[in-house]
This record gives sequence, structure tokens and C-alpha cells, in this order.
Amino acid sequence: MKINNVEIEDTFAEAFPIQVSRLLITAATEYYARIAATEATGFGTSIIGCPAEAGIDCFVPSSKTPDGRPGYIIMVCHMKKDKVKEQLLERLGDCVMTAPTTAVFNMLPFERMEDKTQEKKVDVRLHFFGDGFESKAVVGGKNVYVIPIMNGDFVCEEEYGVAKGVGGGNFFIMAETQGSALVAAQAAVDAINGIEGCIMPFPGGIVASGSKVGSLKYSKFMKASTNHRMAPTIKSKVPDTQVPANVNGIYEIVIDGVDEATVAKAMTAGIKAACTIPSVVKISAGNYGGKLGPYKFELYKLLQ
Amino acid sequence: MKINNVEIEDTFAEAFPIQVSRLLITAATEYYARIAATEATGFGTSIIGCPAEAGIDCFVPSSKTPDGRPGYIIMVCHMKKDKVKEQLLERLGDCVMTAPTTAVFNMLPFERMEDKTQEKKVDVRLHFFGDGFESKAVVGGKNVYVIPIMNGDFVCEEEYGVAKGVGGGNFFIMAETQGSALVAAQAAVDAINGIEGCIMPFPGGIVASGSKVGSLKYSKFMKASTNHRMAPTIKSKVPDTQVPANVNGIYEIVIDGVDEATVAKAMTAGIKAACTIPSVVKISAGNYGGKLGPYKFELYKLLQ
Amino acid sequence: MKINNVEIEDTFAEAFPIQVSRLLITAATEYYARIAATEATGFGTSIIGCPAEAGIDCFVPSSKTPDGRPGYIIMVCHMKKDKVKEQLLERLGDCVMTAPTTAVFNMLPFERMEDKTQEKKVDVRLHFFGDGFESKAVVGGKNVYVIPIMNGDFVCEEEYGVAKGVGGGNFFIMAETQGSALVAAQAAVDAINGIEGCIMPFPGGIVASGSKVGSLKYSKFMKASTNHRMAPTIKSKVPDTQVPANVNGIYEIVIDGVDEATVAKAMTAGIKAACTIPSVVKISAGNYGGKLGPYKFELYKLLQ
Amino acid sequence: MKINNVEIEDTFAEAFPIQVSRLLITAATEYYARIAATEATGFGTSIIGCPAEAGIDCFVPSSKTPDGRPGYIIMVCHMKKDKVKEQLLERLGDCVMTAPTTAVFNMLPFERMEDKTQEKKVDVRLHFFGDGFESKAVVGGKNVYVIPIMNGDFVCEEEYGVAKGVGGGNFFIMAETQGSALVAAQAAVDAINGIEGCIMPFPGGIVASGSKVGSLKYSKFMKASTNHRMAPTIKSKVPDTQVPANVNGIYEIVIDGVDEATVAKAMTAGIKAACTIPSVVKISAGNYGGKLGPYKFELYKLLQ
Repeated sequence: MKINNVEIEDTFAEAFPIQVSRLLITAATEYYARIAATEATGFGTSIIGCPAEAGIDCFVPSSKTPDGRPGYIIMVCHMKKDKVKEQLLERLGDCVMTAPTTAVFNMLPFERMEDKTQEKKVDVRLHFFGDGFESKAVVGGKNVYVIPIMNGDFVCEEEYGVAKGVGGGNFFIMAETQGSALVAAQAAVDAINGIEGCIMPFPGGIVASGSKVGSLKYSKFMKASTNHRMAPTIKSKVPDTQVPANVNGIYEIVIDGVDEATVAKAMTAGIKAACTIPSVVKISAGNYGGKLGPYKFELYKLLQ
Repeated sequence: MKINNVEIEDTFAEAFPIQVSRLLITAATEYYARIAATEATGFGTSIIGCPAEAGIDCFVPSSKTPDGRPGYIIMVCHMKKDKVKEQLLERLGDCVMTAPTTAVFNMLPFERMEDKTQEKKVDVRLHFFGDGFESKAVVGGKNVYVIPIMNGDFVCEEEYGVAKGVGGGNFFIMAETQGSALVAAQAAVDAINGIEGCIMPFPGGIVASGSKVGSLKYSKFMKASTNHRMAPTIKSKVPDTQVPANVNGIYEIVIDGVDEATVAKAMTAGIKAACTIPSVVKISAGNYGGKLGPYKFELYKLLQ
Repeated sequence: MKINNVEIEDTFAEAFPIQVSRLLITAATEYYARIAATEATGFGTSIIGCPAEAGIDCFVPSSKTPDGRPGYIIMVCHMKKDKVKEQLLERLGDCVMTAPTTAVFNMLPFERMEDKTQEKKVDVRLHFFGDGFESKAVVGGKNVYVIPIMNGDFVCEEEYGVAKGVGGGNFFIMAETQGSALVAAQAAVDAINGIEGCIMPFPGGIVASGSKVGSLKYSKFMKASTNHRMAPTIKSKVPDTQVPANVNGIYEIVIDGVDEATVAKAMTAGIKAACTIPSVVKISAGNYGGKLGPYKFELYKLLQ
Repeated sequence: MKINNVEIEDTFAEAFPIQVSRLLITAATEYYARIAATEATGFGTSIIGCPAEAGIDCFVPSSKTPDGRPGYIIMVCHMKKDKVKEQLLERLGDCVMTAPTTAVFNMLPFERMEDKTQEKKVDVRLHFFGDGFESKAVVGGKNVYVIPIMNGDFVCEEEYGVAKGVGGGNFFIMAETQGSALVAAQAAVDAINGIEGCIMPFPGGIVASGSKVGSLKYSKFMKASTNHRMAPTIKSKVPDTQVPANVNGIYEIVIDGVDEATVAKAMTAGIKAACTIPSVVKISAGNYGGKLGPYKFELYKLLQ
């Protein structure tokens, strides 16, 4: 298959179940909502080395939020529900309540989620921070606590939905040069940014460094190492390289979403956008032969 | 003392020793250096709930970096040196090496640091990720590893200086309204942003929520709770409130720096900037009567 | 009427007919589309001193543009249709075709416009720049020219709709302090930003300086001067001041839209957003007793 | 000559005298200074179709401005001094005085300018807008007017230096792909951004579309047309093409500066930065055989 002369490989992305929370952070202005959302989702690219996978899902204009202020929806994900709860408590307490003029609301179940049966609530008892000065209120139909702090009142829900979502949706962008691969990856990120219900947890949404399980040389102490078969600068030294001869830059886009349909939609939009950039050669996807997870996103099906 | 008609309280900020690392992240363009620096310093406001205190120190133009590319210096801090090492390994491995086109260099000892005797190196062995395909090189006079990854080569030093810095420099901005306090806090952040050798680890540099040690009502399980004496919306209910009658918004700026001189310089610049904003009423600072830390920043001395 | 304890004055905004063009600028990435849109709409706050009133209307994701790339819709307006044509030629030729990777498409008639009968096309013959190397093509159902330039091909339509829209929709935000007025004005701008079919042509969408027709003191050579009755810092010297005693900061939001319904929607969203900010005292609107224009936006009707 | 394996052509950039003004716009926060500076310098890429060449020179931290607030220095240039005066009046009156919390100060003569003899003042009588309510004051040693407006007081100088500077410094970046050329152009812009005393007036600092004087096919009515010899997509149809066989994307960086030394410094920094990007093939520069202007910037001299 070809799109704009870019070869689409006949392969699939393999993804796995992940526990997902989804919250709305509002603030007096869009800027301060963004600042809080960014801090709260930082250090959250991959649970290999980060305490969570986290990112900004989408902007919500003031006309559509419970408190009539602009906001960003974020997602905080982990394999284990308990870890999601722990991360919410820490990230809300230290990165959102401390940010100017913020409020936080639960955004799960997501109205468009396919399977709502798995969804459960976790209790994040921020109101104790109010030391008895907190009060209950209803904002936009939501039961919240109002906690007096230095800049006024912090408003938040305490129960947050955690549901089984889909982690690790992905595709690879291969281009003749690093620069074209980067522009194409950015185009993909820009396309996916507008899709509700998913995040791209890596820096700016782009993955520059892929890993393989285990190690050829340092297998005694390294559980993962560079995916040398996908490294352009050593392609001439690696007999079984997967880097095409005319490719000198590769980026991966990784997507965590609330369900399969959302991840499929995001992958489709991202791949199409990447294919608008000149000198992109090939689109592929990462899988482990079906061993890793139950979710398979076949590129040909997505793009047909 | 008054500056632009703003009352400066005759008090001091109390700060404590903290272990500081300081790194330069460069990238092909300023934007991607910023993206990596932001992700690597996220979820890093306070070691109460975050795994580190981290933030962006300053921008470095391409003419002044080892590899001739634009970069941001970040600082990652913790009370314990071992934790700094752990955090560097995780944040560099998961948030910088994964970011497009990045390289990382050690920036300690800082040429302007007062006391370099305390400085030690920690080893962050990222090169093992290269799985034998890595090589040694010299870039801008620095010994680095070159690790082949998907988007080309990742370049990094492995030894990073960790030194005793100063954590918790601070001041409070009190204004007639929340809006004026926020504009003044932003003005302070904008002023401090340009000062090399320090970070403001809270979201956007601003703290909206102050805490006191312990709790009046939930002392059995809460180690910290809202600083109710500094909460404007309940000032009428708190007999010993510290909120002046005409104050309705308070923000704190918290600064971690490489040494006392830098924190002093940052506090001075920030306070002066805050005092340019109409309707700011008072500047104060946080201390624990001298019990917390050995560093005292007297406002009158800073501003004389 | 009161919203969140903010007084809404029983008055109306008076607006006038204006010739409106509306174009979509796409680019390889969101950033470069934004850069081109910003340059092309600069120096365009008011036709009193600028050659046009221009601004960014809204972002369009790549899934909804003719060429599958992200874009921004801009509006370029003037009282005279000929001036709109002249401005389009200059702004497209010098600020968009020169910007990296751009393409331009006509976005009038707007699908939601009320009155399409007034709409006419103007010819902006950019293709002559191609010097015979240009070619015709169809992109996303649009007839375009493809013009070879340094960075590849520039793609553009040549005929752009110009329609009778509504200029000068407005409201005033009055707050206890300048800071709170500014935060409220920003909240209003953030709310209106998402509404398709209108622009806020002043810097960042906010007007800090209002004018009256004529001059008290320099009437021989000044056609307009500061609206001294709306100036907080001299309210005690102006017997007929319109500044309430507790107001120290005022901003105006000015809106140009494709039709009355859009301006009404924008004003409503903006006013509601401004009223979420503490210390806002009053919302008003500007009119000339009905002498200026045929469009009247009564605040009570908008907000009922 | 080669830098990082990029061929530097043995040629020179030809530049011409231009009348330069240089102003500092400050505001309560960095963001609002930037907003005003951006609006005031928009629609200002080239005096071929724009009323001025204008751009942001550099950021000035609050510790170094006359009023202790953050600011941006802008430059507004034209071939004719009268036009500079006209443009200052319109751009300051409509794009800066209308922007929130701004003040404006003259920044010419620039302390580092080589030749100060040519410098003259133009009078921009903004104070008449104050309608008699304006007053004189001294701010940071500068004589200013204080003009009461809606958001408080607008502070500005009235006399602005205009000096003979250097317009049209330039170089071309040629790369294997459009994407790599774009990343390299961005790297060049990021490098030049920090250099005081110059602007890059095109959108985001980058020129995507070059022109030649006259036209092959439409010479009767077109004074300029696409530089077809520098257009990669038609290189196979143009016998005397200047596009190397392996080049598919070209960008130009254009620089206006206060003097030759500044333009030379900017060109040097920009070229070096562009050469850090993989797949850049060649750096060249534009000249008219020495007919256009008296200033010649030889690439070999700059880079030796």
C-alpha cells in the first residue's frame, strides 16, 4: 500500500491493557491550565523508568467545562490501578493544587468509551489538606471540595475513575533524512493532538530512541537496550538491519488511549499526516509477534 | 521598608542544604531542547510528593554550547545524593534520550559557584544502552559517548557533578486581588528566569498553595496541611490570620540554587519585579524561626 | 443583572458593516502555519492607523483541511472591498508565500454565514509570480495554482470571497485592579478563541487604550484622543468619569465577525468567561447612541 | 571550504543601507511585552509589499530596562526616514499603546553601533493622544510622557533615533530534503535570535520563496518573479538551475542590522548553526554582482 508515494508496511502495532485515569484541570486562563497540566504529566513517558505514563489529552474551552473556565484534560496511566491512585494523589497534590487558580474534575467514564464495565473509582483524599476549613459544594453538577489555600480556593473532586484502556499503540516514520523524519513526526503529533481520549506520553509526543528487550552484549545486567536493527547510523554494520538503504532518520509515535477505537483513530490520523511530508519513505509499526498484548492494529485495515 | 509603595516585611527566608545536579540538554532546535528539558523536569515541584525537585535553569545559545546547538540547562535536586543519581538515570534515560535530536552535558561545577569543595561526581551509565554499538568521542572538549538510536546518534556525558546547593529560598507576594497577585508572581518569575544557577521548581515557577507542618484537625494521619493563616478566603474565620485586611491573593516563589549568592540574587530580582505591579500590598518570606536550615535571606539586606 | 456577582450594565455594543475575507493557511506543521498566520495578520488592529483589521480566527486540524495538513484560518477586513483585495495581495505575497511550507485556501462563504448574498470574489493573481513555471491542480476539491519556489511548491487559490461582516462588536471589563482586569480580559480572549468566524484584532485580543472621537484640547489637529472618561488613573480629576469608584483597571475586547450571530456568540462567551475572575466589578459595552452602525448587541439579551 | 562536511560556496552576500529605528517595549510580564512586539512588527517582511521591514531584536530582562519590567527590543526599518517616522507613529499608536500594560523607550543610538554620526531623531507625538491629561516624567533616566488610558497609564518617549543600518544580509541553506532544510533554517534562526542589534524580518525568520528582478514570461507587468533557478521542484526543467542535484529544499535567512559588524556576526552564527544539521549540503549567499549595495559579506571571511 502507498499513501502519497510513502510505502505502508503490511504489519500491525501490538498494544496492551493499561489502567487509565482522565482528569480535567481548569484555571483562570488557558496558560495556567496548560502550565499545571504540563507539570502534572511530566516525567511520565514510559513506566519502564517513570512512575507513570502521562500526558495532555486535549484542550476544553470554557463553554464546555464544569466551572466555565478553560482547561486541559490529562491522562495518567499505569499497569496497576493502585499505582494510578498513588500517582494521582502525588501529582494532584504537588503539581496541580500548587499551581495558580486551578480546579480538577474527573473525566471518566468518557462518553465515547466502548467498554464502561471495567471502570472503577479511586479515592484521592485531597480534602484533608484543608484541615477542617474545607467545605463541600456543587460545581457544574459535580460534587467537589473547596479547599482554602494561599491564592484563594482550590476546587476538586475526590473520586476519579480508573478504567482499562489501551497502552502502546504505535507506528514508525522512516524518512530519507533525520530532518524530514522529524517534521513528519511533528505533523503526526499535531494531527493526533486534537483527538480526544488519548495521549502521546513521550517528549513532545515523539520517540527518538527505540529499545529491544534484553541486550546482545550486556545481557547480564541490562533488561533492555537500543533497538540496533532500527538505528540508521549503524545500518551498514548490522547485517539484519531493518533500516532501508535510503532511510537516515526514524521516529516512533506511541499512543495510550481510553479504548481501541480511539487508538485506531489516532494512529490513522497520525500516519496520514506523516505521509504529507516530502521524503518520508515508509511507515511501519512495532509488535512482538503477538506475544505482548491482545490488541492488534493492522496498518492496512486502518488506512484502507 | 517600601518599594513602589509596597511594604517589605522585616523578615527572612529560611533555606536548607540540597544536593544539586545541573545539566545541559541541547537539540537541533531550541524547541526540541525545551521539550526535552520540560519533560525531564516535570513532576518535580517538591520532594514532599515528587521524586525530585527539578526545573529549567536557563537557555544557552548555540554559540556557547559544546556542540554548537541551542540548549537548556536544567537542575535536578534532592536531599540525598543517591536519589539525585537515581533520578538522573531515570530522567535522562526516559525523558531526554527518547526526545528528538538531544545531547546531554554536565554543567557542574558551575563557574560561579562559591564552594566547589563539596562537589562530587555520580556515574549515570547510559552507554550500556548502546549494547556495544556505542563509541567514545570528544565534543567541545567533553568526553562523551555516542549511542546509536532510531533518530541518529544520542550524545551524552556519563559523569555528572552533584554539589551542595541551597533549597527553599522564597518570598510571598500579597496583593489586593488574586489577579494582581498572579500578574506580580508572573513578573517575578519572568525576572528570575534569566538568572543562571537557579530554578523555580513549582508549576510555572509559582506556588499557589502553602502548607504548614502538621494539622489542627487531622493530626493523626496528616503530616502537613494548608497554611490556614495564609488563606485569604477564610481570613475572617481565623483569629490569628496573617492575611492583611486588604489582601485577597497570595503567591509564593520558591527558589533552589547552586549557592547562597545565586538564591539571594534571584530573590532580589523577583521581589523588585513583583513591586512593579499595581495593587501589590506586601512582600514577606517564609521561615521556621531559624529551626529549618542554616541559610537566612533577610529581605532588608537583599533590598537595601 | 448580575453574573457571579459582577454587574452587567443595561447597555448595548454598537457595530458596523465591514468587508471580510477569510482564508486558511496550512503548513507542514502547526507551528509554521501559526507563524505565517501571525505575520500575515500583524499590524492589523484597527483601520484607524493600520492598513487592515486582521487576526487569527481558529485552528483547523489536518483531518479537516483540503491538503491534510494543519492550518489556521485568518480574517483580513477593511471598510472597502478594494482595500481588502490590495491587503490580501500584499499579505499573501509577502507574509505567507514567503513562509515555510505554506498553502492558502479560500474559506468564504463560511458554511454558517447568515447572509451569503453579499459575498463576492476578489482575484489575487499570485500565480504570475510563478513566471510560467506555475501549473494548475486540484487539492481537496479546490482549484489551485502550484508555484515552484525555493522550499518546494507553494499552493494557493486565487479567488477569495469578500463578504459583508460585522465590525466592532465589543465589551468592557472593569475590575478592582489592573491585574484582575487583565486576567479577566485574557479569560475572555481564551473563551472567544475557540469560536469560528470571528477575530479579536487587537494585540493578544485585548484593548488597553480606548479613544473618543475628537479632542478637548487639541481639537484642531487630533481627530481622536484618549477616552478620558474611561481612564482610571484620572478619575478623580474628571467630573463626568465613567469609572466606578472601586475600579482601577479596564480592558475592552473588540470582535470582528462574519455575521451578527457569530459576534453575539463571541461576546456572550467572552463576558461569561470574564465574570469567572474574582474582583471583576462590572461589564459594559461601547456605543455611540446608535449613530455609528446598524448592529446593536444588547448585553441583557445576550446573557439572558 | 567545508564545515561539518557542508560545502560553503566562495561567494558573498550583498546588502544595502536602510534606515533603522530600534525601540524597547516593556510590559507587566514577558508575555504581554511579546504580544505587543509581535503585533507591532507584523506585516513587515519586506518593503516590496509591506509598509516596513520589522521584527523582534531581543529580549531584555527586567533588571536591565528603564522601568524594571521585562521587554522586547524591536526594529522598524525602511529605505526612507520619513517612512520610518510614519510607521513608528502608526505601529506605536495602534499596536503598542493599545496593548496591555506597555511602555516604549528609544534604543538608538545602540551602544555598540559603529557609526553614530548618521543617527537622527524623529518626533512621534503620541502625547497629544492624552488630550491634556498627559504629563511629563522621568523613568530610568529617560524623559517620558505619561498618558492616562483605560488600563492605567501608558508611558513612552517621543523622540526615536533613526540611523543608517544594513539591510538584506543573507545566506541560503540547501539540503537534501525540505525537512532538513527547514530544521537547519530553524537552527539558524535560533542562533541569530540571541544576537543584539538585528532582526530577521521574514515569517519566523525564514524565507521560503526567493524572487528575481523582472520576469521571463510576464515582464510587461511583473517587476519580480520566482527565482526559478533556485526552485528545486523544477530543477530538471531549468537548464541553468542553481540547485545541486542532491538538493530538494532551500531556505534563505535575511538579516537587517544596525551595522555591518552585527550583520556579519549574525550571518556567522546562523551559518554555523545550520551546518550542525545532518543532510545539509551547501551554504550560499545572494548578491547582484555588486550592483545592489555597498556592503559585501564574503562567506569565507566570515567563517575563517
